[in-house]
Amino acid sequence: MFHFVNAKENIVQEAIDGILSASGGRLSRLDGYPFIRVVMRADWDKSKVAIISGGGSGHEPAHVGFVGEGMLTATVCGDIFASPSVDAILAAILAVTGKAGCLLIVKSYTGDRLNFGLAAERARTFGLSVEMVFVEDDISLPEPQAARGIAGTLIVHKIAGEVSEAGGTLENVVVAATRAATNVMTIGMSLDTCSVPGSEKEQRIAPGKIELGLGIHGEPGVGQVTFESARRAMSYAVDAFKPRMRSETYVALLNNLGGSTALEMSVLARELLVSSIGSRLSHIIGPSAMMTALDMKGFSITLYPLNIDDELLLSEPSPLNSWPGMRTLGEPSVMPMPHGLTPLKFTPSSNPSVEGLIKRCCDTLIAAESELNALDAKTGDGDTGSTLAVAARALLSNLENMPLGDSAQLFLALAQELNQSMGGSSGVLLAIFFSGAGDSASKGHDFKVALREGLIKMKKVSGANVGDCTMVDALEPALNALKTSLSDAATAARKGADQTKNITKANAGRASYVSADQLIGNTDPGAEAVARVFEVLVE
Amino acid sequence: MFHFVNAKENIVQEAIDGILSASGGRLSRLDGYPFIRVVMRADWDKSKVAIISGGGSGHEPAHVGFVGEGMLTATVCGDIFASPSVDAILAAILAVTGKAGCLLIVKSYTGDRLNFGLAAERARTFGLSVEMVFVEDDISLPEPQAARGIAGTLIVHKIAGEVSEAGGTLENVVVAATRAATNVMTIGMSLDTCSVPGSEKEQRIAPGKIELGLGIHGEPGVGQVTFESARRAMSYAVDAFKPRMRSETYVALLNNLGGSTALEMSVLARELLVSSIGSRLSHIIGPSAMMTALDMKGFSITLYPLNIDDELLLSEPSPLNSWPGMRTLGEPSVMPMPHGLTPLKFTPSSNPSVEGLIKRCCDTLIAAESELNALDAKTGDGDTGSTLAVAARALLSNLENMPLGDSAQLFLALAQELNQSMGGSSGVLLAIFFSGAGDSASKGHDFKVALREGLIKMKKVSGANVGDCTMVDALEPALNALKTSLSDAATAARKGADQTKNITKANAGRASYVSADQLIGNTDPGAEAVARVFEVLVE
Repeated sequence: MFHFVNAKENIVQEAIDGILSASGGRLSRLDGYPFIRVVMRADWDKSKVAIISGGGSGHEPAHVGFVGEGMLTATVCGDIFASPSVDAILAAILAVTGKAGCLLIVKSYTGDRLNFGLAAERARTFGLSVEMVFVEDDISLPEPQAARGIAGTLIVHKIAGEVSEAGGTLENVVVAATRAATNVMTIGMSLDTCSVPGSEKEQRIAPGKIELGLGIHGEPGVGQVTFESARRAMSYAVDAFKPRMRSETYVALLNNLGGSTALEMSVLARELLVSSIGSRLSHIIGPSAMMTALDMKGFSITLYPLNIDDELLLSEPSPLNSWPGMRTLGEPSVMPMPHGLTPLKFTPSSNPSVEGLIKRCCDTLIAAESELNALDAKTGDGDTGSTLAVAARALLSNLENMPLGDSAQLFLALAQELNQSMGGSSGVLLAIFFSGAGDSASKGHDFKVALREGLIKMKKVSGANVGDCTMVDALEPALNALKTSLSDAATAARKGADQTKNITKANAGRASYVSADQLIGNTDPGAEAVARVFEVLVE
Repeated sequence: MFHFVNAKENIVQEAIDGILSASGGRLSRLDGYPFIRVVMRADWDKSKVAIISGGGSGHEPAHVGFVGEGMLTATVCGDIFASPSVDAILAAILAVTGKAGCLLIVKSYTGDRLNFGLAAERARTFGLSVEMVFVEDDISLPEPQAARGIAGTLIVHKIAGEVSEAGGTLENVVVAATRAATNVMTIGMSLDTCSVPGSEKEQRIAPGKIELGLGIHGEPGVGQVTFESARRAMSYAVDAFKPRMRSETYVALLNNLGGSTALEMSVLARELLVSSIGSRLSHIIGPSAMMTALDMKGFSITLYPLNIDDELLLSEPSPLNSWPGMRTLGEPSVMPMPHGLTPLKFTPSSNPSVEGLIKRCCDTLIAAESELNALDAKTGDGDTGSTLAVAARALLSNLENMPLGDSAQLFLALAQELNQSMGGSSGVLLAIFFSGAGDSASKGHDFKVALREGLIKMKKVSGANVGDCTMVDALEPALNALKTSLSDAATAARKGADQTKNITKANAGRASYVSADQLIGNTDPGAEAVARVFEVLVE
């Protein structure tokens, strides 16, 4: 696996500096590189209880992304998946702790427990009030092993952080954090292990398997089963939670372990709602990548029982982009469809002269089918003639229903007809042309002006101008000359079509993908069709 | 590749429903499933100019994640990487457009240009004012091909959205959006292609190569080179931008194409700042996944020249979690290290009796080295004896510097000595034990009480209690009996140590990882060491 990093030993500090640089001055770090990597709120004045967390890196945005108002005061960053040193933790405590004291929120791993524990003891010898809460939210491992701390830690951060932010005492903060840590539960699963920069990727999870009860360091979960679907995956989590759910309502935190797409995470949010515990989930935090295992293609779900106090604390708005906020979870809101999507109905009307013109155009296009296909085959996929012939036949068979006596209505009807019967981009472009003309004619413009306005719309959408080897090469000069006479228009169209033979470079349309030596000497089939239509109209 | 999805044909609508369910009522959708997938602001009253975007899915959070105050009014979601239908786009326009009109912001791909173009024409026949802006920000492809619309589209969304939010007319919105679309430029690159659910992954980019000028659908970029580092990757982007940078200062939008980790994106943010154009970047949006190509392991950088108007518009706070906001870009803020990290200095003092006790303990531990190692080897890595002996020798050699005459100071000094000389978790745990005791003794407690308080701290951090087959099994009964006499303490320690032979299940410590048949019959080496120390103290 290759990663967007430089020297392996500098990853964590370069990443921290990147976050700090982009934080708009909200974050600072201690001057302790390379061994002491402590990130703290730049606006901290020690007047409130400091909330400190941290641990190994590789869980981003945890924990630097959660340093800020209402969550963490400071965080201590170890190497990837490795506990920070006692000195680094002590530095964080000493840097941000005032008379109000501090709380250390520690994910339960041996290294973190010991190092945070000793740092707390050392800090106390400075006369500081230091308390500690361990998070052990992973419910997947069988007892008696101590449970690991995973994504549920974020619930503890937020609850403790908001109590501190509101001016709570250290005792208030410890009570709230302990309540959160005691009641939060999480389960994770993944379709693959994670890849650590500079290390060989472990191939423990075979393609098509899903590992259940996964931690956040690539350590093995409780077992693997065959992966079936998002729904089935969600059911494993639901089955694990159900026997432990003793409260009425819960908030769910849906966490991306790093490598799942936003699309998948949204599907999983849907599955959570429609699961058998969905009705007991009143709120949701996420889906979002909050506590990751680098690029692990998995997710975790955290449940936390909601009481009114915690609901208020978790609902507090946050300036932190990494914290997605808590929202109510409910059925999607659905609005009625607007009117106007049914095909327009036109009142048929007769105009023998217009009918004759259309018939001649259609007959011409049908007759030119194979010639136009042959032209197209030289630089394209050889179907321009057939596409036009199909549309022409459809139009002929529906002529009796057309509003031939009203040019504005007729243009709109032609747009609809071509859009329905003609495939490919030319069908849509001609529909835009006639729709634009119809819109213009509806405003009282002469049909010649209307057609030119239709052309402008079509050119804007396609990006094609004269010289790009498209039907515009014939259509634009023809419509300009139409101000003078139909005969001039036909002459201009023919001249424009013939000139497409000399084009060697196009800026839009399919010719822009074709090399000069393929283009030269070939007439564009769309322009040729336009020229033939104008020529037959003159006859 | 396996994905957290259910039936392939339902991915987009299930994902949309998931987002809507988790939106807390902020978003609605039109009742047009399965073909018409339009998401809109639930609070929209048509009084302002509607801003509509959309296109193929697979770019999440774009575009549903940007529907809300100050950005999009509605978005139209096609299948993965496929343009939505004309009907779907028309439905969106009709649903949200009032007298103020609407602007369509369209990424420049043929399908999107045509379908949005025709939908606009059809909407105009309803008398609605509909304008359209194409985004063509990809600067990677050689002219003359039309540039694609990629992550720079988000700049256009935000600028147009904020002008509308502020009550601007359709003309104001079009002017602002056109300015944004004209000046924004983006370049992307990736270490791998993306995996589309239900399709075979294209293996176009070999491991160790990086493809430059990549789009957001896995379509090929302009070329591949050997990947060297984050710094070198950033230099390709910088080289592409430099000749096109005609303004003084720019904002950079740093976008994760989906599969890069937050750690890597932060390293890239750092590289952007220290690059040769870093001094001209006054602001940054991100790093964040905003316009993705599913799970593509790449990134894109967008540059946009900042004038005062756009700076204000882009700085507007947003309630949208997918929009990371614009922040100033600058050198990381660094705070001085706190005092107190240097090892504590103790004033040596003498106390022959205490000195004698310590010497006897140390001698005992040194003498027991191989026996304790042998005990440890039965269930662990066989180094408990050596670890203790090393610490004992270090302590003996430093005895003259210890504050032997002051028990509080002595405990703290022992903690520091053990933490420095004794490896593994037992060194940290004993340091916590003596630190806790020192902290207690400093508050005036008797040394017996102080040692018990040290034990409480150590138990909390380790999670180990009597019965978990650790040194606590001897230490706790000993300290409890110490209230009576040293002799009772020694008897209790021995009894506790011997009882560890009968333990078959531990809830903490290394024994929790060992099976019952391995545990039974073996004395814990830590408990044995404690018993021997107490026994020698009685002699």
